[in-house]
Amino acid sequence: MSRLLAVDWGTSSLRGALLAPDGKVVEQRTFARGILTVAPGEFPAVFDSCFGAWMNPETLCLISGMAGSQQGWLEAPYCPCPAGFDDIAGQLAWVEPGLIAIVPGLSIETGGVPDVMRGEETQVFGALQLLGLDNARLVLPGTHSKWVTVSNRRVTDFSTWMTGEFYALLRQHSILARTLPATDPAPDAAAFEQGVAHALRSQGLLHTAFSTRTLSLFKRMATGALPSYLSGLVIGEELKSQSLQHGDSVVVMGAPALTSRYEQALALLGVSAQRVSDGATWRGLRAIADTLPQH
Amino acid sequence: MSRLLAVDWGTSSLRGALLAPDGKVVEQRTFARGILTVAPGEFPAVFDSCFGAWMNPETLCLISGMAGSQQGWLEAPYCPCPAGFDDIAGQLAWVEPGLIAIVPGLSIETGGVPDVMRGEETQVFGALQLLGLDNARLVLPGTHSKWVTVSNRRVTDFSTWMTGEFYALLRQHSILARTLPATDPAPDAAAFEQGVAHALRSQGLLHTAFSTRTLSLFKRMATGALPSYLSGLVIGEELKSQSLQHGDSVVVMGAPALTSRYEQALALLGVSAQRVSDGATWRGLRAIADTLPQH
Repeated sequence: MSRLLAVDWGTSSLRGALLAPDGKVVEQRTFARGILTVAPGEFPAVFDSCFGAWMNPETLCLISGMAGSQQGWLEAPYCPCPAGFDDIAGQLAWVEPGLIAIVPGLSIETGGVPDVMRGEETQVFGALQLLGLDNARLVLPGTHSKWVTVSNRRVTDFSTWMTGEFYALLRQHSILARTLPATDPAPDAAAFEQGVAHALRSQGLLHTAFSTRTLSLFKRMATGALPSYLSGLVIGEELKSQSLQHGDSVVVMGAPALTSRYEQALALLGVSAQRVSDGATWRGLRAIADTLPQH
Repeated sequence: MSRLLAVDWGTSSLRGALLAPDGKVVEQRTFARGILTVAPGEFPAVFDSCFGAWMNPETLCLISGMAGSQQGWLEAPYCPCPAGFDDIAGQLAWVEPGLIAIVPGLSIETGGVPDVMRGEETQVFGALQLLGLDNARLVLPGTHSKWVTVSNRRVTDFSTWMTGEFYALLRQHSILARTLPATDPAPDAAAFEQGVAHALRSQGLLHTAFSTRTLSLFKRMATGALPSYLSGLVIGEELKSQSLQHGDSVVVMGAPALTSRYEQALALLGVSAQRVSDGATWRGLRAIADTLPQH
């Protein structure tokens, strides 16, 4: 087991952590150098300027996230599901053999339609380690939420939900934007739950979204509560499609403000949420490193 | 039965038709003077400049559409459903008593959530007359599609679907816009049907929309086919929620390019579509006028 430089290189940010062989984080750095800010060919220089001082021949660097996409440093082909830890570890894309590698994303095909993730697979495997789970249902909420099913430590199913992006589209660009306040007031838990409940019992977001307008038109909801209500509608719509049963448990990981909303919405379904402490990505990368024979 | 000036005053356009007592259209005019272009207080002057020459003490004018909204000429309160022809005719909002009236929209409440329409009620009643129907399921596709159920010539149920607006949001503002061609190529019927079929068998638009990206990423669909595919996804999502049975018949009314798509999608469900010839609004307004005792 060597020293590991764990890097999460996403669309909009670049984070790195130096890990001791026991997985302990020695130091962390964050940069506003997501792959969208890096021109083709510039990746080695950006990497060097951010993390060069941490690298030496005894240090393995593993990079997860969009750095492995077509627009990234080096394309790491998707690893098809079902996929376990060893599948991912066995398909690293080596930038510098034995030194710097990029973790592949996962792909799955359902009814002839593919789905993909990049970066979340590492978070998922890290979360399993942190929570000591071999089987789990996980959700990683965000612009594009991922729902992931893990059986016997293998990702057997996953799907992408454009929930955060739909919210932003409706909030900013739709006719509803004229009804909503210009800036978001404090979250309104009751309005959020009302939105979730309406989504759960209704026929679909194309219809329920319009209620944001009519509730305001008929003065049934204060303007300040409407953004929370709309958030409840989209999150409720996402949850409704997950075939969740009363008594189920779901691992929720992501930004605290968002995971809190998911926990609140899951509670309405009688589903308990299990949180993951910080560091799932680092733990996942450490575990992949430990799987490699030479480290 | 008097001469009727039938006016459809919507958000973005203003149309008027002079109708003979037998309902025959004598003359029609269209103006780019939707209510969004008219300042409060300006409505009488705009009406005069557009239709003043047609008015005389023997002419009744009925106006349907958003002219009856809060932002319109005179607010015509919604008529609650179930509502028949006579309910609407009995709740006209008179701008000039006996001369100029605005047709009320319809409202309905389902599970504590209101829904509304303004203008479509007139089209629906006109369509019933044109087709000789007392009972029907109707769809008026558009930015905000309306699904309407008529029993014994009364609107017993309706709902709004933001289908056209969701398509535009995804087409123009979402991450999918980066994958789609800048301008729309000719419609691709096969890609459209593939979109409808995927929506019908899948769990929801928040998820299926992402396939527009992955099908392109995996080179499973040509870029030029993606807009039609996305259109199929949203229309399929709308249809999926309507509890349609094989063998059902639905009245489809709206712009020809859009009604054709709905007919194509309905055919995939084994549902036949009945078209309405032009002039449903004029026919509806004529029928309301004929209901009034004084005309």
